[in-house]
Amino acid sequence: MTESAKLITDMGRKARAAFSKLTGVSDAQKSAALKAAARHLRANQQTILAANQRDVESARERELSAAMIDRLMIDEGRLEAIASAVEQVADLPDPVGQTIDRTERPNGLVMERIRVPLGVIGIIYESRPNVTADAAALTLRSGNAVILRGGSEAINSNRAIFEAMAAGVVEAGLPADAIQLVQTTDRAAVGAMLKASGLIDIIIPRGGKSLVKRVQDEARVPVLAHLDGINHSYIGKDAAQDKAIAIAVNAKMRRTGICGAMETLLIDQDYPAPGPLVRALLDAGCELRGDDSILELDERIVSAEAPDWDTEYLAPILSVAMVNGVDEALAHIAEHGSHHTDVIVTEDADLAERFILRADSAIVMHNASSQFADGGEFGLGAEIGISTGRLHARGPVALEGLTTYKWVVRGTGQIRP
Amino acid sequence: MTESAKLITDMGRKARAAFSKLTGVSDAQKSAALKAAARHLRANQQTILAANQRDVESARERELSAAMIDRLMIDEGRLEAIASAVEQVADLPDPVGQTIDRTERPNGLVMERIRVPLGVIGIIYESRPNVTADAAALTLRSGNAVILRGGSEAINSNRAIFEAMAAGVVEAGLPADAIQLVQTTDRAAVGAMLKASGLIDIIIPRGGKSLVKRVQDEARVPVLAHLDGINHSYIGKDAAQDKAIAIAVNAKMRRTGICGAMETLLIDQDYPAPGPLVRALLDAGCELRGDDSILELDERIVSAEAPDWDTEYLAPILSVAMVNGVDEALAHIAEHGSHHTDVIVTEDADLAERFILRADSAIVMHNASSQFADGGEFGLGAEIGISTGRLHARGPVALEGLTTYKWVVRGTGQIRP
Repeated sequence: MTESAKLITDMGRKARAAFSKLTGVSDAQKSAALKAAARHLRANQQTILAANQRDVESARERELSAAMIDRLMIDEGRLEAIASAVEQVADLPDPVGQTIDRTERPNGLVMERIRVPLGVIGIIYESRPNVTADAAALTLRSGNAVILRGGSEAINSNRAIFEAMAAGVVEAGLPADAIQLVQTTDRAAVGAMLKASGLIDIIIPRGGKSLVKRVQDEARVPVLAHLDGINHSYIGKDAAQDKAIAIAVNAKMRRTGICGAMETLLIDQDYPAPGPLVRALLDAGCELRGDDSILELDERIVSAEAPDWDTEYLAPILSVAMVNGVDEALAHIAEHGSHHTDVIVTEDADLAERFILRADSAIVMHNASSQFADGGEFGLGAEIGISTGRLHARGPVALEGLTTYKWVVRGTGQIRP
Repeated sequence: MTESAKLITDMGRKARAAFSKLTGVSDAQKSAALKAAARHLRANQQTILAANQRDVESARERELSAAMIDRLMIDEGRLEAIASAVEQVADLPDPVGQTIDRTERPNGLVMERIRVPLGVIGIIYESRPNVTADAAALTLRSGNAVILRGGSEAINSNRAIFEAMAAGVVEAGLPADAIQLVQTTDRAAVGAMLKASGLIDIIIPRGGKSLVKRVQDEARVPVLAHLDGINHSYIGKDAAQDKAIAIAVNAKMRRTGICGAMETLLIDQDYPAPGPLVRALLDAGCELRGDDSILELDERIVSAEAPDWDTEYLAPILSVAMVNGVDEALAHIAEHGSHHTDVIVTEDADLAERFILRADSAIVMHNASSQFADGGEFGLGAEIGISTGRLHARGPVALEGLTTYKWVVRGTGQIRP
């Protein structure tokens, strides 16, 4: 067994023991642990900012990109945001122990499904140190034990944030191993986590496409992943023109770097005002890459190449196609989409229902901006990611997605005939 | 690409196209397809029994075990049971389209979760030809497309049953590729199914431990598996003696070969009547393998060896241990159990709740026989298996377990600020 495998096996065993102890922990205790953790985050501001400063300096020395350094950097304001996010999770309702359903059988047996934590969750993330606090808070709130493995460039920040979170956990009387941080920056530790079947119940990668891809390719443990958000908005022939413009501009331009951003606009060939729609996007500073019918609408539009239809730009660039009816729109989405968030804009309720039924996406929207694809906007209070897989949890994943259920059968001595 | 990979890729693409078409199919149409399939099964009785006869003869020539030949064999009675099981699935309520929950946000957006089929399901099974009909019925009823791959020893029976099922599908106007059977007996086809990410959404193995193990080890596609049922019954100190005896004898001896059978009995050291309990089991024909305290109870009891505590006998053999209280019982279950079904027998309601909370099993029972671990007994109408995994579906898996959900967001032009 390699050093990394030994380390992860040891951490996994401790996590399983902690998970078992967490079964008996009350809602109030879990909530108190997170509130204490938030206090420790604030009380250790100087230590955390100093640790972060070391990471930022080392990143500058290694000439990492400005975008990466920005993701890495913590200032007073960002630390306060991290602490209050932890408090918000503490205030969310605890899903554990909820009864999902209950039936009484003719023989008097009562069958209930009760929500229970998933178990031991492994989180693998990149340069954002806030994930250390966010992910620990969400997994602990839902009664799980967690093994955190952040990017090597944030190791000092992650350790400092982790120490504060761990202090809160211990202060509230929870098992110390309920949250653990992989302290080595050896990449082999990630490989060991991905193969820790029987110790880690699920891996959640949080980061860019290459991380998620590596995790999905190598993992023997189940993965809850979100891949690309190649999101479409289809403007039906009866779309209200003001809504079409407002939704398209917002879906693309509000924030271009998030997974809920629109990446392809599909305009019905019978929609009467495609010109004002594309001009609004161009005027908002968006580069448009269109098919032949779209090119005619404005000279600023450039010609789309084949890969454009499969690209998550995460930038002010949009591919635009003209389609012949909802079926062609759905066929385009089926061929090029990523099962994340797809939108129809129309005043025709029957057409909307048809789209809602047929689009095979985690989130299907009618007359709304795809930028609403976010756990907070869905009323979930927080999110650990948006799942584009089909199993277990789909779309925004928050506390409930971090639980499973057990069947409880209550009898009075029944035996099976 | 190998021949097998080509075959499975082709079948997978056809299945995805069929799945897409199934989205628009009504409850009544799916139900009608299964009723038509049952008619075709009955109408083709001679063809099916003749095909089965060829499989049975070939199995006898290859000197397969009597148990395997029994699993393979179909007679008139068994075929009638297969056909009526298909009809029963046709009569189950359709889970697709059900609203799981619904919230309205302050901005007027309405968020709903709607149950939708999982997608394309691959079923890999062994010598029981009835699985061809059962699995096709359950997957189709829940709106999924299915690729069936049965054991080579049942290939003629599987083909004949499949033809009848497919005739029902086509008769009801459903896409023909909604159900497909892998017609080759080449084992490489199984490997190709296990790696068909993006084409097959989930693999469900149905068969013995070695099949399930191979599937779990090789699969790149998510697997819904049930492994061993190493089920425990813990007799608490306050257990009613008549219930303890009736439940233990039923849990072990009603049918010893099913995954819900008890494999280990844990008797509390303060339970006052261990003697009558073990004698009832011995008198019922069960071999008992006990620890030192149990050995003293009756001279017919043999000494348990270490592997006994981790063995799924599926036979009239039972390991028996004396434990000191519920915590020791739970520790034994945590160390040796398989997260399938564990039972407490006690008249102490608080003790029962403690056991129910702490036992990390898919099914936890109080004062009932573990042999109730069965989808039919749970009121699910049928089951495709009992999942011992933690993700997506746990315990008996029926129609709902073969679905996922999508989020539907209904707006009136909302954009995100």
